Amino acid sequence: MFWVVPLVGIVTLLVVWSYYRQIKKADPGNEKMQEISHAIRTGAFAFIRREYTSVAWVLLIALPIIYFTLDLPTLVTFLIGAFLSLLAGFIGMNAATLANVRTAQAAKNGTVAALQIAFPAGAIMGLTVVGLNLVGISVLYLLFGEPELLTGYGLGSSLVALFARFGGGIYTKAADVGADLVGKLEEGIPEDDPRNPAVIADNVGDNVGDVCGMGSDLFESEAEVMVAAMSLGATLTARYGAKAIVGPVLLFAIGVLASVLGVYFIRMRKNSNVYSAINNGNYVTCALAVLGGFFFTKFYLNDLSLFGAVMVGPIAGLLVGLASEYYTSDEKQPVRALAAAAQTGTATTIIDGVAIGMKSTVLPILITAGAVLIAHRFGGFFGLALSAVSMLSISGITIAVDAYGPVADNAGGITEMAGLPEEVREVTDTLDSVGNSMAAVTKGFDISAAALTALSLFAAYASAAQLEAIDLLSPSVIIGLFIGGIMPFFFSAQALEAVGRAAGFMIEEVRRQMREIPGLREGKAKPDYARCVDISTRVALKEMTLPSVIALLAPVVVGFALGKEALAGVLGGSLLTGMLMALFLANSGGAWDNAKKYIEAGNFGGKKSPAHEAAVIGDTVGDPFKDTAGPSLNILFKLVEIVALTIAPLIR
Amino acid sequence: MFWVVPLVGIVTLLVVWSYYRQIKKADPGNEKMQEISHAIRTGAFAFIRREYTSVAWVLLIALPIIYFTLDLPTLVTFLIGAFLSLLAGFIGMNAATLANVRTAQAAKNGTVAALQIAFPAGAIMGLTVVGLNLVGISVLYLLFGEPELLTGYGLGSSLVALFARFGGGIYTKAADVGADLVGKLEEGIPEDDPRNPAVIADNVGDNVGDVCGMGSDLFESEAEVMVAAMSLGATLTARYGAKAIVGPVLLFAIGVLASVLGVYFIRMRKNSNVYSAINNGNYVTCALAVLGGFFFTKFYLNDLSLFGAVMVGPIAGLLVGLASEYYTSDEKQPVRALAAAAQTGTATTIIDGVAIGMKSTVLPILITAGAVLIAHRFGGFFGLALSAVSMLSISGITIAVDAYGPVADNAGGITEMAGLPEEVREVTDTLDSVGNSMAAVTKGFDISAAALTALSLFAAYASAAQLEAIDLLSPSVIIGLFIGGIMPFFFSAQALEAVGRAAGFMIEEVRRQMREIPGLREGKAKPDYARCVDISTRVALKEMTLPSVIALLAPVVVGFALGKEALAGVLGGSLLTGMLMALFLANSGGAWDNAKKYIEAGNFGGKKSPAHEAAVIGDTVGDPFKDTAGPSLNILFKLVEIVALTIAPLIR
Repeated sequence: MFWVVPLVGIVTLLVVWSYYRQIKKADPGNEKMQEISHAIRTGAFAFIRREYTSVAWVLLIALPIIYFTLDLPTLVTFLIGAFLSLLAGFIGMNAATLANVRTAQAAKNGTVAALQIAFPAGAIMGLTVVGLNLVGISVLYLLFGEPELLTGYGLGSSLVALFARFGGGIYTKAADVGADLVGKLEEGIPEDDPRNPAVIADNVGDNVGDVCGMGSDLFESEAEVMVAAMSLGATLTARYGAKAIVGPVLLFAIGVLASVLGVYFIRMRKNSNVYSAINNGNYVTCALAVLGGFFFTKFYLNDLSLFGAVMVGPIAGLLVGLASEYYTSDEKQPVRALAAAAQTGTATTIIDGVAIGMKSTVLPILITAGAVLIAHRFGGFFGLALSAVSMLSISGITIAVDAYGPVADNAGGITEMAGLPEEVREVTDTLDSVGNSMAAVTKGFDISAAALTALSLFAAYASAAQLEAIDLLSPSVIIGLFIGGIMPFFFSAQALEAVGRAAGFMIEEVRRQMREIPGLREGKAKPDYARCVDISTRVALKEMTLPSVIALLAPVVVGFALGKEALAGVLGGSLLTGMLMALFLANSGGAWDNAKKYIEAGNFGGKKSPAHEAAVIGDTVGDPFKDTAGPSLNILFKLVEIVALTIAPLIR
Repeated sequence: MFWVVPLVGIVTLLVVWSYYRQIKKADPGNEKMQEISHAIRTGAFAFIRREYTSVAWVLLIALPIIYFTLDLPTLVTFLIGAFLSLLAGFIGMNAATLANVRTAQAAKNGTVAALQIAFPAGAIMGLTVVGLNLVGISVLYLLFGEPELLTGYGLGSSLVALFARFGGGIYTKAADVGADLVGKLEEGIPEDDPRNPAVIADNVGDNVGDVCGMGSDLFESEAEVMVAAMSLGATLTARYGAKAIVGPVLLFAIGVLASVLGVYFIRMRKNSNVYSAINNGNYVTCALAVLGGFFFTKFYLNDLSLFGAVMVGPIAGLLVGLASEYYTSDEKQPVRALAAAAQTGTATTIIDGVAIGMKSTVLPILITAGAVLIAHRFGGFFGLALSAVSMLSISGITIAVDAYGPVADNAGGITEMAGLPEEVREVTDTLDSVGNSMAAVTKGFDISAAALTALSLFAAYASAAQLEAIDLLSPSVIIGLFIGGIMPFFFSAQALEAVGRAAGFMIEEVRRQMREIPGLREGKAKPDYARCVDISTRVALKEMTLPSVIALLAPVVVGFALGKEALAGVLGGSLLTGMLMALFLANSGGAWDNAKKYIEAGNFGGKKSPAHEAAVIGDTVGDPFKDTAGPSLNILFKLVEIVALTIAPLIR
């Protein structure tokens, strides 16, 4: 029955192809719009090219190490994992940069028309990720027949995710801050004004960080959770036979099918309410996935008790998402109180935003803890891994919902730069704002997916390293826990400082162009967009090197120097504080962002009021919190776990 | 030989008495100074009275619970632990509020004369804490003969520390923010101006938070580390005999004697360099403690290998202190870079300060991890506990060095309010500034002392709950770790918000008095200082209730509902993230504070420059970070550990 899996993958990719055709044949708008879109697209591919070159160098260094310390199959799966993740990013980025201008054009015909372009573009990112993962994992398993050999696949995807999410995160915020600080504050020109040399870099950032980065993050989670579940399944063949190994992939395929249908459902709606159209699509997917999970556990694994585990993952993900939304939505009490606090000044705004972020960790962690307890009770660590697989199996649609937002955002930018009428901008703004509130839910979903993935990897590591127990009373475990615990703090600090330094270079360049290019301020000359894109790219990739090397080497050094127990401690510590810090950073940032928007909507004095000024500073602080440091932590703790799993055979 | 211990305690208290006489007979200055000092003293005792009433209520609730679930000796030791900690706070506060005005008066005769008053006042706090602890623990042990029964002593001291450190922390910052915001910003009157109704409350805060709060924090650490070491020693009587139980207390007594001599050494110096006088006193203490530790391990325990463990604690404490100082001193690169970043605006200042705080966790945690590894290698968890005991045994002098700062600060306030000449203020400022840089080192020392204490309690808990291993692969341990991990985040958020709300009440009251009392602005009428003190006190004690109850109940609920393994996870999780967050909050706050001072010293545009404005906001954000949330976390994770140790016999 396993041949179904690559087939589902191929079908999914065919659906992607049909969406791509549909976007491609849509009207790309007038010449000015196409020119702007071309600049964004060129910039995005410039980033991609440089990023891929850096990845290639890392691969070149990693290959001999992997070959000589491990084996050839691990090397092959490593390369394919990296390649497929890069390919997924490329396809998603390509679609997004084609769709942005076409969405702007379609927005002339209203919200539904615009959604019919923007959403398929997001869906391409989502379905490519799950489709390629299905094909990749199933073909490699059919080839090598050993789940342990697939660890390399996870490691490869992890490395790419590090570049896309961390490098992309630095890039996008450096461009954003550079564009805003000089443009809005120093020169007094509006956002997305074509005279701003950093404006294209800023729009490129949306694609690089929010489309490509997020896609690679979930590509990694999916790859790793399947690898972990298959490894854990391999210890249960006495009970379930080979089905325990291939089962997780099959379960994932069921969720992918459900997502394809859910996405199709959203696309077809002629309904004018974007929010409910998307929610209905989500419900369809969930219902189908639940049904599939039931049949899977009852008739395939013949163990209905595992259905509890399969159910608990997606429910926990949804609840964590809703908890995150509660703390970051401008329709809920915390953000409104934060906006009110902005009236008493900047310091209060910062303190209260930090407090909201810290408080917002409580519910998600309790929900995740509850999910662990339940899933483990229903099926041990294999059950836990299955719950994570079923949660991630529907990520095709969650990515789609998340990734159409930046497309709409870009469309808005193009609308502005091309001087299209106000009504068109309003349409793209509507799409963007629905995208933002959807993104709050999916962000929480992502973090809990990453946490359950990491826990599954943790269990797989313990099994691979032949650890019977990981005793917290052993000093090496305690030390490992300490070392793992500081990693997210160190990494976050590096990310925050990197954005600051990279933004500094951008600010200098924008100021230089403003000064040196005659007629730029008057709109008579064109700025050198490409140079800004290039600077941001180079600095971002340079800044990410040191912390990434440390993140990669720390588990290796601890493993070989202090032993496998200490390394287990590192995994536990980095997961615990990584998840806490990721939630804290994401939700403080989200709360500041929406408090600002709430004030801009006319509350507490509206734009240009003292409250607005304080909220803008809060938002500026929150930007690297939520878009660079926070998301990078997801990658960090997964990376540490997959590196540990990879070297487990060498240190046991 | 154990009779030496209470004797050392009594000698120490006699030294305290002689210092008290000496301060008391110093010149209290002119009538105006005495009037101001009287107001501060009255306010401080008003806070103490209310705090002690609240503690009494909690005791009343706790007593029947302890009596019926545990036993009479635990009840007795609990009461005595609480009583002695309250007594130490009372004596320290009494001395500090007598010494502030006398220091101001002595400052007319120069730095040395002022130090001769201020330092003994700090020494009274420090030596009272260690002296009472020695007497309390030794007498109770002689009375009951069972180290387990002393757990109540730790719990009692923990409860008082919670009130003093957390309640005091909210109080002091609410008063500070209230005084600054209305006084400096709205009314444009200088700091410590007698027309400001909150000025007395602000000066009371220094005594309440920095003298009494810090004293009770270390009283708790000392009490708990001795209890933990004695409990762990009780498992080693086969090897060391009863010496393993009483040994830790003897080792502590050695350090206390060394501190008494070191303090005496500082007091006698006629040297005009305050900084080197204090450092020399520290060196004398350390040298004597090392020598004593050598004799203790070689001739008393007959196991010189434990000398390694005894040495590693104080060294680690010193190194952590120096690491903290590096990140927060305005003579080092991080704070100077932060001050430079203030030139580019508030957002950059906040982001960079947060990054400094996060980075500053790395070295202290690595040092602590190294200390754990070494101490454990030399003597298992007993060795680790001994290292913590020897570290805390010299806390008599570290508290003295820390507590004289607020006395000097208060003296400065009195100088200002009484209109004494500028040169007098300069003398108190010198003392204050040396106090501040000393405080940076001791703050790091405190956190690592709290961490080693908590680890010793953790080991004692495992032994008391008869846990052979605490397996990170057990889902209940994982869940416990998650729950413990969120506690510091939740607690910090509560502390930050509590300061905000309490400050709000203060601001309202100060505005009301400014508005309603005729002639106040012109200095013709006196403000109602007492009302400000009262409001701040009431709000602080009210605000601390909910988070404290949660902190007390969480380990109990987890222990009974999820079992002793889950509770062990809670201990590990709260210790890990608690220590990380305490370092992060303390050091970000310290860095912002000193960046502001560095700019005020004339750098990057000096006072009133845009950089200064940004730095002031950073400092305002940092105030509740470093003086409320950060220090309260020390108490939090120790409290969770001691509660767990107390209920361990009930859930094993």
